[in-house]
Amino acid sequence: MPESEIGVVGLGTMGAMLTLNIADNGFRVSAYNRTHARVTELMETAGNLARRIAPCKSVEALVQSLKRPRNVILMVPAGSVVDAQIDALQPLLDDDDLIIDMGNANFHDTRRRAQAAHEAGRPYLGVGISGGAEGARFGPSIMGGGPRESWDRVAHILDVIAADHEGQPCARWMGEDGAGHFVKTVHNGIEYADMQLIAEAYGVMRDGMGMAAEECAEVFTRWNDGVLKSYLVEISGKVAAARDDSTGTPALDVILDRAGQKGTGRWTVIESQMLGAPVPVIEAAVGARNMSAMRHLRLQGASLYRPNACRLDDGLEIQDLEQALIAGKILCYAQGFDLLYKASTDFGWSLPMPGIAEIWREGCIIRSAMLNDTAAALREAPGTNLALADHFRALMDKNVDGLRKTALAAQAARLPVPALAAALAYFDTLTCERTTANMLQAQRDYFGAHGFERIDGEGAHHGPWHGHDLDGNSTQG
Amino acid sequence: MPESEIGVVGLGTMGAMLTLNIADNGFRVSAYNRTHARVTELMETAGNLARRIAPCKSVEALVQSLKRPRNVILMVPAGSVVDAQIDALQPLLDDDDLIIDMGNANFHDTRRRAQAAHEAGRPYLGVGISGGAEGARFGPSIMGGGPRESWDRVAHILDVIAADHEGQPCARWMGEDGAGHFVKTVHNGIEYADMQLIAEAYGVMRDGMGMAAEECAEVFTRWNDGVLKSYLVEISGKVAAARDDSTGTPALDVILDRAGQKGTGRWTVIESQMLGAPVPVIEAAVGARNMSAMRHLRLQGASLYRPNACRLDDGLEIQDLEQALIAGKILCYAQGFDLLYKASTDFGWSLPMPGIAEIWREGCIIRSAMLNDTAAALREAPGTNLALADHFRALMDKNVDGLRKTALAAQAARLPVPALAAALAYFDTLTCERTTANMLQAQRDYFGAHGFERIDGEGAHHGPWHGHDLDGNSTQG
Repeated sequence: MPESEIGVVGLGTMGAMLTLNIADNGFRVSAYNRTHARVTELMETAGNLARRIAPCKSVEALVQSLKRPRNVILMVPAGSVVDAQIDALQPLLDDDDLIIDMGNANFHDTRRRAQAAHEAGRPYLGVGISGGAEGARFGPSIMGGGPRESWDRVAHILDVIAADHEGQPCARWMGEDGAGHFVKTVHNGIEYADMQLIAEAYGVMRDGMGMAAEECAEVFTRWNDGVLKSYLVEISGKVAAARDDSTGTPALDVILDRAGQKGTGRWTVIESQMLGAPVPVIEAAVGARNMSAMRHLRLQGASLYRPNACRLDDGLEIQDLEQALIAGKILCYAQGFDLLYKASTDFGWSLPMPGIAEIWREGCIIRSAMLNDTAAALREAPGTNLALADHFRALMDKNVDGLRKTALAAQAARLPVPALAAALAYFDTLTCERTTANMLQAQRDYFGAHGFERIDGEGAHHGPWHGHDLDGNSTQG
Repeated sequence: MPESEIGVVGLGTMGAMLTLNIADNGFRVSAYNRTHARVTELMETAGNLARRIAPCKSVEALVQSLKRPRNVILMVPAGSVVDAQIDALQPLLDDDDLIIDMGNANFHDTRRRAQAAHEAGRPYLGVGISGGAEGARFGPSIMGGGPRESWDRVAHILDVIAADHEGQPCARWMGEDGAGHFVKTVHNGIEYADMQLIAEAYGVMRDGMGMAAEECAEVFTRWNDGVLKSYLVEISGKVAAARDDSTGTPALDVILDRAGQKGTGRWTVIESQMLGAPVPVIEAAVGARNMSAMRHLRLQGASLYRPNACRLDDGLEIQDLEQALIAGKILCYAQGFDLLYKASTDFGWSLPMPGIAEIWREGCIIRSAMLNDTAAALREAPGTNLALADHFRALMDKNVDGLRKTALAAQAARLPVPALAAALAYFDTLTCERTTANMLQAQRDYFGAHGFERIDGEGAHHGPWHGHDLDGNSTQG
């Protein structure tokens, strides 16, 4: 068999699907997994693609099977496994062989590994991909980070395995070192928020309007024809319509309300804190997952407080809910892209702001019609807060009343809507000329002499509150 | 002059006040600052306390002036300055000399330094103090971390310089290594939230009810006689009553609404994310400070959207606002203490849960009447969520309607109340028997095959949604 263009180490769901995708696009690819059964399994399911896949029994065999200079994709669990795999590969590779970590790495790890590779004079890419198993198989969104020339070397493969938006590949070089994994992290943060907003709308329908799962499914399906058109709204319609095989009831109704997470939502919140770029809707979404996991505590809370049955304001319409989701989504995008822009500056990356929105239009989990308009707005002004860009301001003008109405009705009916409420608070703060932070500054100056700025002049000032005597005149004998 | 009991390195406001406090309590104390002018200044203001303060011109002189085994307090800016100061001191100290970092260290740094000290066989304490300049001078709240025997060695000094609550010193050993600085961090997180809740109540009065600063002052002063009795409500009354010397207008009205921060609020949020213990009210408070700092963006948002003048629901009373603050405060405490309890388990500290509430009753910025009841609730059940403890449940029953009413009225009137809204969402989630996380789990299973739990059985399950064909049958030629 001729040498392979590229190798994949790690054949979990994502690695296996990616291998099939590469083979499906005409490239020879070598595949290795620590547990060999996975390699065998892959070959068995590969069908007519097996002829382009070289199954390998060892890392050594994989390395031997590759064209030089070699390209090796790592698709192993993020964390120490990646470091171990790099350590295992390095002695077998030549200096110009390229390692590409396509797992869900924390971008700080990627920066560290990129730095180490740079010092050793070896090329290294940290590449985020999104789209789940289906994306990996048929075209994910691909966010690259590392030396530009290393990206260019494998771009002919990544471009064709990626999703396609009207002829443009959803694969892009984002910048040096951890840029790709950072962008992927924020993608996931937005994904958390988008999912939570949808879940809250579902909750208002289910608990506030007494709608059955199938009725909710119809609404999601209808919304997917409008401004909200997106993969997540589409699959929400599908899961709401599905029936459980064993009981015949709606599948949603047999699923326990305890959500898991894998860390990228949390990372987004942590980086937003470090960068001082607030992402309250994402915070609310991560918080909601954590609270969902504390089921025991919630059951105790529910039994202690015995909340009355919810009565939703009769005036709330499905259309208000749709508006709430549209406005919430815009505000969540605004926060996510503001975070990306701040990171781009602080980490010296020059992230391609419109390019990020462009490659999220297909392939990835948050793909949505709105990202096309986002790309357009960011082409005009890469650093704009999206809620203040013309297109979205017009949309907000039409939809923010629905967000407000929905949040108010839900809160009045005791329905938890943390993400919708956070979106509303963000909007009201973003459009607030004079906040109440003057009170915070007065308090801070009172107890900590932190000083404040005046509305009528520059510099630090102190308030007229201190009659305290803090010096040496003893008061304690 | 006889040898000193203890030395202080770093004579900024906090260091100078602490030195005076120590001298005021009858101990001889040595004082050193890199810029000697600060030492001179301290001696000039020390009055009759100067006789117990030994001014030092160098670290060497300070070390020479101390009784053995020596005790040296560091009161220098957190971060690399602490490491540099430790490096400068170590060669001058004997193995049993004790370094006590009383600055605002990140507890991760304290853990690292404690580990290094432990390996070198030297004692090291990381001690958080709160109370601002006045607290440092007349009695702060003191949270100690490190080897118990090192704490015991200086406890006779720390106990008497600390604030006093009915004869009990507000100083306590919290646990090993970073425990003291962690507790101090969460204290500050709660402080951020407490301040923001007050600021939002102020905003409703100012912008929703058209009340002048003095009228707000009267309300805060009245509240300080009730359940809300606390230092922060007290000083809110004072700053609201104060008049600006130069203009004669209320001081609050000349202060710019751009709040600063020093990082401990952010650290609290980051640690809560790492530990999976949600603190949404604190997140909202940190976010509000960040948003306040983006004044340029807010002015742009205000001019673009030209929000209508706010009209507050006529039905909202000052009493509703008081109830909102009471409920918000309980929920924010619940989050903070849950975070402490989770950290105690995860870091293996055995934090004295009621003890934390006890030493916060006096001296520190968040001191409040409610902490007495908090201590009582935690004595009964150290791991309880406070909102579910009898005393607070009764209080919540009385006050949560005011929280809901206030949040609704403010949101309807476009007044930003992120912290009040986050508190309400937290309460509604905490008392929610069935959340909408089943939708999240369905979505995650759909796109990522993450699996879910069923309400009627154990184990991981998958939904009936996949007709996808992800295997090797090529679809792309």
